Amino acid sequence: MNFTVAFTTFENKQASVSVPTGTLLSDAAGLAGIEISQPCGGQGRCGRCAVQVTSGDVRQRSTLRLSDEALSQGFTLACQSVIEADVSVFIPEQEKIERKLTSDRVAAEVSVPTSYEFNYSQTIRRYNVRLNEPSMDDQTDDWSRLQTALRQQHKLEQVTCSLGLLRRLGEALRKGDWQVNVIANKDEQSTEIIDVRPSICDDDDPIYAAAIDIGTTTVSLWLVDLTTGKVKAQVAEYNGQIARGEDVISRIIYSGKGNGSQELQSKVITTINSLCETACKRVKAQPADVIKATIAGNSTMIHLLLGIPAASIRLSPFITAVNHLPMTNARDLGLNFCADALVDCLPGVASYVGADITAGVLSSGVDTADEVTLFIDVGTNGEIVLGNQDWLVTCACSAGPAFEGAGVLHGMRATNGAIEEVWINGQNYEPNVRIIGNSKARGICGSGLISLIAEMLLTGLLDKAGNVNTNLPTPRVRQGEHGAEYVITWAADSESGQDIVITRVDVDNLLRAKAAIYAGFNVLAEQVGMTMGDIQQMFIGGSFGKYINVEKAVQIGLLPDMPWEKFSFLGNTSIKGAYYTLLEHSERERIEEIASRMTYIELSADNSFYDAFTSALFLPHTDAEKFPSVMEAIISKQPAH
Amino acid sequence: MNFTVAFTTFENKQASVSVPTGTLLSDAAGLAGIEISQPCGGQGRCGRCAVQVTSGDVRQRSTLRLSDEALSQGFTLACQSVIEADVSVFIPEQEKIERKLTSDRVAAEVSVPTSYEFNYSQTIRRYNVRLNEPSMDDQTDDWSRLQTALRQQHKLEQVTCSLGLLRRLGEALRKGDWQVNVIANKDEQSTEIIDVRPSICDDDDPIYAAAIDIGTTTVSLWLVDLTTGKVKAQVAEYNGQIARGEDVISRIIYSGKGNGSQELQSKVITTINSLCETACKRVKAQPADVIKATIAGNSTMIHLLLGIPAASIRLSPFITAVNHLPMTNARDLGLNFCADALVDCLPGVASYVGADITAGVLSSGVDTADEVTLFIDVGTNGEIVLGNQDWLVTCACSAGPAFEGAGVLHGMRATNGAIEEVWINGQNYEPNVRIIGNSKARGICGSGLISLIAEMLLTGLLDKAGNVNTNLPTPRVRQGEHGAEYVITWAADSESGQDIVITRVDVDNLLRAKAAIYAGFNVLAEQVGMTMGDIQQMFIGGSFGKYINVEKAVQIGLLPDMPWEKFSFLGNTSIKGAYYTLLEHSERERIEEIASRMTYIELSADNSFYDAFTSALFLPHTDAEKFPSVMEAIISKQPAH
Repeated sequence: MNFTVAFTTFENKQASVSVPTGTLLSDAAGLAGIEISQPCGGQGRCGRCAVQVTSGDVRQRSTLRLSDEALSQGFTLACQSVIEADVSVFIPEQEKIERKLTSDRVAAEVSVPTSYEFNYSQTIRRYNVRLNEPSMDDQTDDWSRLQTALRQQHKLEQVTCSLGLLRRLGEALRKGDWQVNVIANKDEQSTEIIDVRPSICDDDDPIYAAAIDIGTTTVSLWLVDLTTGKVKAQVAEYNGQIARGEDVISRIIYSGKGNGSQELQSKVITTINSLCETACKRVKAQPADVIKATIAGNSTMIHLLLGIPAASIRLSPFITAVNHLPMTNARDLGLNFCADALVDCLPGVASYVGADITAGVLSSGVDTADEVTLFIDVGTNGEIVLGNQDWLVTCACSAGPAFEGAGVLHGMRATNGAIEEVWINGQNYEPNVRIIGNSKARGICGSGLISLIAEMLLTGLLDKAGNVNTNLPTPRVRQGEHGAEYVITWAADSESGQDIVITRVDVDNLLRAKAAIYAGFNVLAEQVGMTMGDIQQMFIGGSFGKYINVEKAVQIGLLPDMPWEKFSFLGNTSIKGAYYTLLEHSERERIEEIASRMTYIELSADNSFYDAFTSALFLPHTDAEKFPSVMEAIISKQPAH
Repeated sequence: MNFTVAFTTFENKQASVSVPTGTLLSDAAGLAGIEISQPCGGQGRCGRCAVQVTSGDVRQRSTLRLSDEALSQGFTLACQSVIEADVSVFIPEQEKIERKLTSDRVAAEVSVPTSYEFNYSQTIRRYNVRLNEPSMDDQTDDWSRLQTALRQQHKLEQVTCSLGLLRRLGEALRKGDWQVNVIANKDEQSTEIIDVRPSICDDDDPIYAAAIDIGTTTVSLWLVDLTTGKVKAQVAEYNGQIARGEDVISRIIYSGKGNGSQELQSKVITTINSLCETACKRVKAQPADVIKATIAGNSTMIHLLLGIPAASIRLSPFITAVNHLPMTNARDLGLNFCADALVDCLPGVASYVGADITAGVLSSGVDTADEVTLFIDVGTNGEIVLGNQDWLVTCACSAGPAFEGAGVLHGMRATNGAIEEVWINGQNYEPNVRIIGNSKARGICGSGLISLIAEMLLTGLLDKAGNVNTNLPTPRVRQGEHGAEYVITWAADSESGQDIVITRVDVDNLLRAKAAIYAGFNVLAEQVGMTMGDIQQMFIGGSFGKYINVEKAVQIGLLPDMPWEKFSFLGNTSIKGAYYTLLEHSERERIEEIASRMTYIELSADNSFYDAFTSALFLPHTDAEKFPSVMEAIISKQPAH
């Protein structure tokens, strides 16, 4: 091989590294300990890893997403730049992942269920055991001694344990002076020991367990006391995998490179361990006290967590390796819980309808509803379930990440500086905006975009086809680089000192996203011989759902036009489902039944989907009769022409 | 000189040689490149060089050690047979001994059982499976697809697998183009998949598994084809832990230091991996083809293998962590087998009566014997079992490592340069020795020490109490640094250029060692209300057992004075037990029963042991009536005074 070493300096990071020529700039940064975010998983498609070469040169595989101006200034995509000689690089501050939307806000997104009736049909049990001390007359081995005591004192037969527990057993027995507390998982056939603690415990000592939701963006953990069923701490953090792809597709691609799979697994494990530590600190417990975790998440997240190759999820015909997972344990995954803590991953249905959705169906009660219920989890993806106590159909919409701010010129996540709601004056077309945090506007997030499109439609700034009306008497409408655009925030008021706009291209992207979701509703209804009018109630899960203004979501045709009281906003239904199944054995059986009952419809193989999608590409819809309240609002708000 | 040439054929060795008439059969074999073991140096005393003359005739100088029945079948001692005409000879396999200190040597110590009837009551099964390829109309996940196919094509319900297998499953299915071979372990309730191989297999393709004996000194592995039950390769190596302590006590102490436990575990795993690789190479297989291992070994070896703390084994009241171990797998232990290969450690009874002994009882059949049987495994420790089909008692003798050459001034292991047998002239007290390998004497090993003590006793060099008789007319008896001593090899003939001697202290150590073992026999017999005279047969296991001269072992009072035909030398009974339990599920159940049936007697807590030990500190014993044949030999050999 012919390679030489190139000296790479990251000038504003006080870091440098020598690498073989041919190394990617993003990899070199990693070697130097500098994290460069690659939201698209290093495919050169998102443009977010742009850095500036200040001296030397790199070979650019792709310059997509870089303007001519940026190129002339030396900007290059770190994930597409091959180092061929010594080079000096400036890493712009704004490209650093800034995801401190504070765990406070994320924590606030979840709320402790209060309505749930706790029956404690629990398989986790705790036993105080007093053993006879061994002697020359009784040389029974430690393990048999414990088994005998459990049989005599607690009538337990068929007690098993792991090799790992046998390694710790002798010490626990002797440290506890032959009086121990045994935590075990008991089913009909057998009892499996999870932990042996070197002291007798009181009935009201807690038994800690965790309910976890692994979102593509956010990981949430509830620390639960199984003796009372109470949630003792709630924490959430961004998924540590986020720097290696913002959506599941980018993550899957990244997982296929080198040791990407191990890296992604390690990152989410680190996130969970960190959450567990934080939660335990709040209640003065140790992560090693946690003896079980029940985990929900989409199929990709579950595959990556367990180190199972996810490649087939991405490729037609979109197959998961496994939907119903065996119980595993903390030791095997590297979780910082009690080593033998059970790790119970909930069952999914398909590549794009995972355990987050079955958990959502369970916690929202779609599967027991009398009324025909439409359930949607608006997260990074849009999964839909239609059904009631008798039947359940489901599909996943490739809505794309437009509502997460991606594919929109000034789109951004719902973090500080994001415009999250917009009102437009129907007379002078001046907007009034609400911004997250105490700062100038930096961009516009998903709920802001829905709000904006709705207001633009109602005020006539947009027509039904999504065209920006350039004939209105306002300087905010103008021709920009990307066609007609509307200025939401003037440069003087923005963080960057540049106008914040929405373009015709942005509107098209948002239309396609909302059309995909609405078309999904349509296809599911048709599948069971119904129309949208037959839907009797709508459940909206996901943290995003919590922030959108339903009225405005209906106005753009994202949600069906139904009476307000028929909508329920349920927040993170996924972690609630994990929590219920953690608490109650009967709920754990129920979620298996839910997963088996759900009929999955693959939209990309469904002929009617394209028609429904095309019809939904209008505002609110080609068939205006489906949205009577919206038509009424348009008429009332727009000035008479 | 008058001689003619005789054509000598060694029929089962595919070898023949022409020799002058008058040549010894043993010499003719040597000329033909065939090693016939002659433990007594060709004096016709040990009987171990017996071969069978199938045609032609030889002149027999001595037929000592051959029964009338053997003689009638044509057996003759190779070292005592003079070739006088063409002759054809069959050399029984068991007589071959190779003492290279290489794996070859150890490999030769084990022999494939031929008498064992193979019933194939096997839980390991193999299934060819043809799956439907997934499509947009059939998006079933890989794991459910395989489960369904196994149910439909092989009527298997309740199929389970590990997380590790799920990680490999997708690749195997696709690589095999949806035609795979599944290896599984099937019990009454469920079927657990061990491996999924990406192709359909033939019925006569082998399924490799391993029977392993982890000795303190030597690890042996037999590679077995489960489809036929045949042993395909036999390998052995020194246990890699040996550099960290020669006996179990030193190992336990070492395991308690720092990361000693991990180090010892890693060393024995490395040994097993190396053995597996060597064995697989011989049959052109890969270690990853091995799908199960059944392991025997003493309790300390099993604890150290599994990384279970062994400290309590060493400390009163001598408790193991566990005797009946759960099934584990190759991945968790770091073995280079198939990742999900089952690792089945056989059950032990107590700290010093481990799975090597239960396996020995099984393979030797003590537990099904009609006659009262005494079984001893002479390895680094001396474990004893007394019993028959109705009862089994067992104990362990802290014989110490004297018979391994430790605690003896010029003691050494049975490697090159070790004196392994000694004959002493009763008139002039000059010794005749046999040395392992083609080298000068370096020291004296266990079998040599037994032989030496016996000869010294018979010739009057030692009295009953073990005192060296300094009044004899020989320069070989003298006062040395350690009291009276006998020179076995003069400096001129030794490797080191120093005299090789045995001292009074050495003799005491050996007396204590043999007394401990004999006292163990006594205590076990007493325990069941018997005397030594009630014992009807004796089984001797262990590689050491294979090399000791029983006559001499009886003469020093190490083994009871019984007719020659009541002794059976069984070699490595431990690995044979592992092999049988690997092959047959019924044998696996039998060994659990054996472990449960064996009543363990702790000698250190037994009052009668000390008395028995003291009585056995004489040569051959305080109670000479127990050793009538020895008394007779002493009288016949010693010159009249």
